Amino acid sequence: MENILKEAVESSRSVLKKGSVATYIPELAKADPEALAAAFCGTDGAMASAGDVNTSITVQSISKVASLGLALQMLGEDLIFSRVGVESSADPFNSIMRLEMKAPHRPLNPMINSGAILVLSLLPFKESGERLQAVLETMRLMTANQDLAINEAVAVSERDTSDRNRSLGYFLRSVGSMQGDVENVLDSYFRQCAIETTVKDLAVMGATLASGGRNPLSGNLIFSERVALILRALMGTCGLYDGSGDFAVRVGLPAKSGVGGGIVGSIAGRGGIATVGPALDSRGNSIGGIRVLEHLSRSMSLRVL
Amino acid sequence: MENILKEAVESSRSVLKKGSVATYIPELAKADPEALAAAFCGTDGAMASAGDVNTSITVQSISKVASLGLALQMLGEDLIFSRVGVESSADPFNSIMRLEMKAPHRPLNPMINSGAILVLSLLPFKESGERLQAVLETMRLMTANQDLAINEAVAVSERDTSDRNRSLGYFLRSVGSMQGDVENVLDSYFRQCAIETTVKDLAVMGATLASGGRNPLSGNLIFSERVALILRALMGTCGLYDGSGDFAVRVGLPAKSGVGGGIVGSIAGRGGIATVGPALDSRGNSIGGIRVLEHLSRSMSLRVL
Amino acid sequence: MENILKEAVESSRSVLKKGSVATYIPELAKADPEALAAAFCGTDGAMASAGDVNTSITVQSISKVASLGLALQMLGEDLIFSRVGVESSADPFNSIMRLEMKAPHRPLNPMINSGAILVLSLLPFKESGERLQAVLETMRLMTANQDLAINEAVAVSERDTSDRNRSLGYFLRSVGSMQGDVENVLDSYFRQCAIETTVKDLAVMGATLASGGRNPLSGNLIFSERVALILRALMGTCGLYDGSGDFAVRVGLPAKSGVGGGIVGSIAGRGGIATVGPALDSRGNSIGGIRVLEHLSRSMSLRVL
Amino acid sequence: MENILKEAVESSRSVLKKGSVATYIPELAKADPEALAAAFCGTDGAMASAGDVNTSITVQSISKVASLGLALQMLGEDLIFSRVGVESSADPFNSIMRLEMKAPHRPLNPMINSGAILVLSLLPFKESGERLQAVLETMRLMTANQDLAINEAVAVSERDTSDRNRSLGYFLRSVGSMQGDVENVLDSYFRQCAIETTVKDLAVMGATLASGGRNPLSGNLIFSERVALILRALMGTCGLYDGSGDFAVRVGLPAKSGVGGGIVGSIAGRGGIATVGPALDSRGNSIGGIRVLEHLSRSMSLRVL
Repeated sequence: MENILKEAVESSRSVLKKGSVATYIPELAKADPEALAAAFCGTDGAMASAGDVNTSITVQSISKVASLGLALQMLGEDLIFSRVGVESSADPFNSIMRLEMKAPHRPLNPMINSGAILVLSLLPFKESGERLQAVLETMRLMTANQDLAINEAVAVSERDTSDRNRSLGYFLRSVGSMQGDVENVLDSYFRQCAIETTVKDLAVMGATLASGGRNPLSGNLIFSERVALILRALMGTCGLYDGSGDFAVRVGLPAKSGVGGGIVGSIAGRGGIATVGPALDSRGNSIGGIRVLEHLSRSMSLRVL
Repeated sequence: MENILKEAVESSRSVLKKGSVATYIPELAKADPEALAAAFCGTDGAMASAGDVNTSITVQSISKVASLGLALQMLGEDLIFSRVGVESSADPFNSIMRLEMKAPHRPLNPMINSGAILVLSLLPFKESGERLQAVLETMRLMTANQDLAINEAVAVSERDTSDRNRSLGYFLRSVGSMQGDVENVLDSYFRQCAIETTVKDLAVMGATLASGGRNPLSGNLIFSERVALILRALMGTCGLYDGSGDFAVRVGLPAKSGVGGGIVGSIAGRGGIATVGPALDSRGNSIGGIRVLEHLSRSMSLRVL
Repeated sequence: MENILKEAVESSRSVLKKGSVATYIPELAKADPEALAAAFCGTDGAMASAGDVNTSITVQSISKVASLGLALQMLGEDLIFSRVGVESSADPFNSIMRLEMKAPHRPLNPMINSGAILVLSLLPFKESGERLQAVLETMRLMTANQDLAINEAVAVSERDTSDRNRSLGYFLRSVGSMQGDVENVLDSYFRQCAIETTVKDLAVMGATLASGGRNPLSGNLIFSERVALILRALMGTCGLYDGSGDFAVRVGLPAKSGVGGGIVGSIAGRGGIATVGPALDSRGNSIGGIRVLEHLSRSMSLRVL
Repeated sequence: MENILKEAVESSRSVLKKGSVATYIPELAKADPEALAAAFCGTDGAMASAGDVNTSITVQSISKVASLGLALQMLGEDLIFSRVGVESSADPFNSIMRLEMKAPHRPLNPMINSGAILVLSLLPFKESGERLQAVLETMRLMTANQDLAINEAVAVSERDTSDRNRSLGYFLRSVGSMQGDVENVLDSYFRQCAIETTVKDLAVMGATLASGGRNPLSGNLIFSERVALILRALMGTCGLYDGSGDFAVRVGLPAKSGVGGGIVGSIAGRGGIATVGPALDSRGNSIGGIRVLEHLSRSMSLRVL
């Protein structure tokens, strides 16, 4: 298994020079564009990894899976999906125009920024710190890694540069789709995006979803089977933003990407597959990570579509 | 197996009264809103079915799978996907606005009307009749049913009422995304939509895709494995229009619907699952068919996401 | 007066090389990009002109003023404005997306292509030829020129290349905003756009509107005062497509342009001012004509805004 | 003259019950929906008025004329119009979608909220208070009323409820169209909207623009002729938001409305005409004010289009 992963990582390094690290958050620009790693965690807890496995990245949008899972678990799918849709968007992850264009003025799905911010606002926490703590704890449970922590430099950098997310938040409130204190919600959003992690953590996260919500390392049940299924379904249709269709053709499994360079995939009943590679393509997805997953989809027969 | 299908069909009939048959094509309005049927065809060719299995419907948008497969097989994916995208749309199946809004002015994917019309225009046939014949023959090969034929009353009805498709065709030509004679292309499009079929045909069609392009009944190789994979992937992300995400959550497998009331699903390595039920939901998908598939997804463990 | 016009024309010729003739209709590409002319017709019928006054052009969109006037006169403003809006659009003259984006799916105003086609469809004529004849006769009455005729080469060229207008027409019918035979309506539209005219004709046309609907040369009442007023108001807000605001700042009077290179302006109580110059700017308005009018707006104190 | 105004006001009162006061800013909801007044100020300084002339309202969007004039005077039209367009929008005054839809991502014109906020951000003031003071002083000069002041209750109310303006501001910064501190700019924006005024002030404001920038009461030159002309032109094409075309047909002169219920019109060389009437139509324009102006447009021959 390690050999298969190694082969996939090494043969994919050549594509890295076609990508570039995210620059809109200054701290992200410091990431190593040449890093590339892969890990697989079976539903039995067996782990294999290859490449730059110690490279740590911030989870960014991958945290949306955790916060959505938490919200579904706490509030139920009926409530959540009365406030946010489940359909894929052909617009970029930070798009606002459809919120105005079509009634009801609610986000298309929880994987784009507007949807993730809205979901966060529904969580029953008053303090930004409590909300963050709940999401962080969910990430820790999904990864079986109690040491997960916030990269404060990245969090501050996000906060200072994220005008678009502020625009989304205030727009959602202006149309009545969101209540509460926008800055308070954004504060926890910026910080949950800055949770630091590695490729092994992400593989465990995927394995937890593949095991119907039970973390195969800790044995703890983090989500109900239904919640795990919903998360996989949404990863399958809109996990890579407006690159989701291309990913379905090339790789063919549920996955979620983040602009930190991580991708976490989940194959129900089999395990979690993850990659780390901060060099991104034009849509904000890890260019090396997609190549590695395309390779592994064939060599490990991971495709489900 | 027949019992499982029967149980799914009978327990789903109650939802039919919430839907209604398509009315924008007058001939479709004559369909029986109370009909409901399901069929499964394994990759080994074993067939089971239940419900109103003799109800015949026109394939409508399901034919897009055949014409896209034919185009991929004849022209290659590089050519096709340089002219049409692979991303899901949150707009209705007949939407035009994004064609103008975003450059390049090409259809988002081949499963929406604009994309299907464009793909047809790429096929190397001069005569509308030849083009239609090639698509019809592909449908016959996929279903192993040489008797498939056009319902001429429906074809005429489509032709007379399909202003939106004409608008799409002329728009595509006005922006240079499509060449050739629009009416000629539309003529074959309207007629391929009117191919008459049954739930068993559709199940075989799904099984052909599930078997990597080889029809399990005839043993003939209709598509390459790669083409079958691409068709499944696109069915997985955008097969039910702007209801694709909802379908992914509720059912979780690649499928394509048509406003005639059919749905064809495909589970790689396992088989094809199909339903027929002309009563549609607000997005133009079979309301009973989705309910049956949701039931079978659980009882037959068909979910892949 | 002739000297003022001459000074305006000659001093504006230098801008012509920055424009280019319309090419999307092949016959229009044959126009002379170096031609430039101006004419003024007072409400007393006094005429002055300068420059290439014998250059003949096709009226193109300027004909929309005549067909709208005819429709208002025959059917009344209440009917017309229940079917088409009066608001300016920031979209190009041939835009379709807003027709889908916003309900009611009716054109924003009668000066963009979709609006003009819709207005034509409301005229109570069955035959395309009758409809054309009525519009042509209106143009003849407005210009007091019974010799106005169709340039058939341009008409055929329009017909063969105007996919976008077909798309607009079929879209309007698909959403129920337009009834009748699209090709029949378009046939007269393409031909009315090809009415051949000169700068003097256009100045008389503007003078007719400036005189409350009475042609100052013939003395005939072509439109009621109210209809003349409505036409001037719409020319004032949306006569130069998405260049209407820029024109209001630079020139400041009601006007209508056509891609044949004509512009007709109207100053209530004073007269009509017209220019001919086939070299267009990026929005499809005569680049030399606007410059001439900007000059005359100052030297003749024509500004009303 | 007073009789003409009185006749217009009294005969228009019946329409008031079809409108309603703005409610999205709580303090505005306290306005008197039955108030209605009109005033005319000639370029010679002669003033006439009728109706509820002592009703005071906040200027709201009418202040955009003052801040744009100030910006044009301080920075020049080339700079201003390199950052904001001059074309009318068919979208509501607080629309955001076009900012994302079309590059360059700049506001269509300075009369919609996004454009007004952007223009404010260009003014060379660091402190919100200084910026406000400069706009307030401009309003005082335009009205020749040194007593104009901020209604602090309305200002606070605007600030607390204006999520949409915040969304616009942060969006503009996210696409690089605006620099600086969004909250700082919005702070002065909310407060300039809350400048309290009466119908006579507004009539003087219109007269100042009609006199080429010279206030006819004080004799002071507030704007250059060119700046006054630009302001009138933009009022003529986009002063009443997406109701500008309707206003051009019904009234036919340059004007600017505010959701406080004021409308200020300007007829070059003749004078300023203003109305106050807090009951608004569905587009946010004074329903009684438009009716009064429609009446006066005829009885006083004010129409310029």
